[in-house]
Amino acid sequence: MEIISVKTNRKVELLDITSEVQKKVPSNKSGICILYVPHTTAGIIVNEGADPSVQEDILNVFATFVPEKFSYKHLEGNSPGHVKSSLTGPSITLIVEKGKLVLGTWQRIFFAEYDGPRNRKVYFKFIEGE
Amino acid sequence: MEIISVKTNRKVELLDITSEVQKKVPSNKSGICILYVPHTTAGIIVNEGADPSVQEDILNVFATFVPEKFSYKHLEGNSPGHVKSSLTGPSITLIVEKGKLVLGTWQRIFFAEYDGPRNRKVYFKFIEGE
Amino acid sequence: MEIISVKTNRKVELLDITSEVQKKVPSNKSGICILYVPHTTAGIIVNEGADPSVQEDILNVFATFVPEKFSYKHLEGNSPGHVKSSLTGPSITLIVEKGKLVLGTWQRIFFAEYDGPRNRKVYFKFIEGE
Repeated sequence: MEIISVKTNRKVELLDITSEVQKKVPSNKSGICILYVPHTTAGIIVNEGADPSVQEDILNVFATFVPEKFSYKHLEGNSPGHVKSSLTGPSITLIVEKGKLVLGTWQRIFFAEYDGPRNRKVYFKFIEGE
Repeated sequence: MEIISVKTNRKVELLDITSEVQKKVPSNKSGICILYVPHTTAGIIVNEGADPSVQEDILNVFATFVPEKFSYKHLEGNSPGHVKSSLTGPSITLIVEKGKLVLGTWQRIFFAEYDGPRNRKVYFKFIEGE
Repeated sequence: MEIISVKTNRKVELLDITSEVQKKVPSNKSGICILYVPHTTAGIIVNEGADPSVQEDILNVFATFVPEKFSYKHLEGNSPGHVKSSLTGPSITLIVEKGKLVLGTWQRIFFAEYDGPRNRKVYFKFIEGE
């Protein structure tokens, strides 16, 4: 298992970590890799990276149905982050072919920060397989 | 890695690809398989296939909290598709036992189209394991 | 593949199954494990377990954007469960190091019941990998 360190800059943010993930992939090997976020107010999202407006639209819509103001019982003020984290999930599995992440043309891997800014970690695990 | 081609017929649609996925599973082998969608306005959903009303209900509720009309900044008109794709995710991992996908009685695998109709792809990767 | 049996107690509930999952992990081995829910109105959520209010907040917000009352076409009355199950997904992949699940400090694994109370199952599959 390897660790990718991520430093987020805002309360809520999508941070492109594609190249950091690619660097962890063993060269010339094929299989899968698992990205795992050990936090409860963050996650991983794979989506379009070309137009930053897409990232804004995703986060803005999330904020409409997971509102900041609600009859939350958890008193730390970060319940919206816990809810968003439950929806997008803590992990993602990607395919690796000959040392390269298999992504679609427009896909980038984003660390999803829902309660930042913070220093965060993403665990990386490669499993070899033809 | 193998590729499943999918042709969607509507703007938003769940398309049952269970039998296409099963065909890619190596006979008599056990392990896991990863389905990966290389698109940013589509995804994979596993849910009930017996009553088509369930698929309609899922997509109709999605459309209420990811609205068509909103202050979207991305100008291609497909932001709702990007948001839905972020929520349901690009990949799913299934268990395989002796050449068969392990699914619940009512479960079917659906390609989730959020910005069709289009020609789409699903990547399939099998990892052997006792 | 191994099976974890879960007995839920309420209509909608998050049930901590972390220790049951840990018991299935082979001692001293490293790799990944897949948890797979073979049901269409349930799922797996990984989130904070220290304060039970977090679990309530998650389920209460889900209930606002996946309403009980809606023009559902499926006549069994459990469409909200199908929608929530589609959102949180049927499976999760966790990393295992030397016989231990790799979880964040605050993370617990929850069986998400969206149409209980029922007797449920979670399938567990371990894949070894350095």
